[in-house]
Amino acid sequence: MTAASYPCAGKGQIRRFAKLQQKKFRDKEGLFLAEGLRTVMELLRHVPDDGYLSALFVEPEQLHNIPQRERLKGKIFLIDPEGSNRLAGTSTAQGIVGIFSQQKRMEIETIAPAAEGKALVIALDDVQDPGNVGTILRTAAWFGVSALLCGPGTADRYNPKAVRAGAGSVFCLNHYGVDSLQKELEKMRCMGYGIVCASPQGRDFRDFAWPEKMVLVIGNEANGVGKPILQMADHCVTIPRGKIEPGVESLNAAVSAAILMAKLTL
Amino acid sequence: MTAASYPCAGKGQIRRFAKLQQKKFRDKEGLFLAEGLRTVMELLRHVPDDGYLSALFVEPEQLHNIPQRERLKGKIFLIDPEGSNRLAGTSTAQGIVGIFSQQKRMEIETIAPAAEGKALVIALDDVQDPGNVGTILRTAAWFGVSALLCGPGTADRYNPKAVRAGAGSVFCLNHYGVDSLQKELEKMRCMGYGIVCASPQGRDFRDFAWPEKMVLVIGNEANGVGKPILQMADHCVTIPRGKIEPGVESLNAAVSAAILMAKLTL
Repeated sequence: MTAASYPCAGKGQIRRFAKLQQKKFRDKEGLFLAEGLRTVMELLRHVPDDGYLSALFVEPEQLHNIPQRERLKGKIFLIDPEGSNRLAGTSTAQGIVGIFSQQKRMEIETIAPAAEGKALVIALDDVQDPGNVGTILRTAAWFGVSALLCGPGTADRYNPKAVRAGAGSVFCLNHYGVDSLQKELEKMRCMGYGIVCASPQGRDFRDFAWPEKMVLVIGNEANGVGKPILQMADHCVTIPRGKIEPGVESLNAAVSAAILMAKLTL
Repeated sequence: MTAASYPCAGKGQIRRFAKLQQKKFRDKEGLFLAEGLRTVMELLRHVPDDGYLSALFVEPEQLHNIPQRERLKGKIFLIDPEGSNRLAGTSTAQGIVGIFSQQKRMEIETIAPAAEGKALVIALDDVQDPGNVGTILRTAAWFGVSALLCGPGTADRYNPKAVRAGAGSVFCLNHYGVDSLQKELEKMRCMGYGIVCASPQGRDFRDFAWPEKMVLVIGNEANGVGKPILQMADHCVTIPRGKIEPGVESLNAAVSAAILMAKLTL
């Protein structure tokens, strides 16, 4: 099948979808944008069904890289490098941009009901770097965490950088944002969740009796978990450093989260 | 002390140091560039001595954020936002750019001599993302790893993005690049190092008898450790996934490295 069998993207389409670079429009439309062959392929591998793909904008020379091009025909539109850069909001777009529907919002009661035994939810308190948020989502999907809960100040999971770092994981586990992390944690406490914060002042994570059902809170890159959340925590845990000095001050937020998730799930 | 007591940066200076955005010039000058207050402060905290700071370019309103400004007086130059953006190569420079000397190159024989008992070296085989390289360096510094060895194809540790992700760790442990990772690993094997690769086909890292003295090889983000290195490995290890499907295909390279380092050093 040649490129000629696919329609060209309209200017209006490009203008509309380029706005998805901004959170405001992503929220309004319930859509998000993914750039680059690898990221788009990872997402296509994990979408619950093809209905989650709204449109796929492709430069003609990239068409042969899309094995699903026949099946997705009605959704593929050809673009030129200028359109591709406009959509992606960068000058280094890689000739393919996908527009996907966001995950359907689920409440914690549905994700990990109170009756159930073991459950691990990761909560993010003001984790500002979208790369960290995407990496944590990816790691959580790998380890089979029940859900990712994002408090205010946390970077949007649908930010293009988060989507890239997430490697398809936005469709692999439940994740949702809340306006008040405190209120959500209170609710979860009533459901039987223990609240554990990652904090330099915490106890060594290796000899710690983890609650069966727990929320693990990861804090801001520079300042850690905020005081209001620390105050309501049942426990705090920390990852000790190795023996050799001088060392760095801290671990990256996504790295800390990963080491704790590995300990908790394996 | 007012801003007036610091000289303004010359155009020639800015032109010269802006070139440090490119690896070619970093290698030639033996210098690198760090952007932003946080990164510069982290580096200043870890430099072996003040001699490692070549120059510090600061917008006047940032001066009060530098507690060491008195001591570093001869090295501080005032810049305007335009100069700051030129130096940093971005339009979002944060008004402070430091120029530092690179770490002195050390050979593995000096870092972890053959006679010594336990040693852990992390080797990177074609890890292309500078953020991953910086994060691995930071994690390695946290856990007190002996050295980081960078094979060809691996992003430069002195790339500004790697420096930012590294959070001051470029001065906290030995790291060096080689033209042939195979040759270096052969040399290390003769020194008594076991060669272990992180690879999806490897054995579960939890029940694995690690060599006392080892190089752990982390591979490319998309393709893992390359065949030539896999073929010379003594062992391969992997991090199993959690129970719930569908999961993502893989973990981020810096995350895998961190989970393995935590297991090996704690």
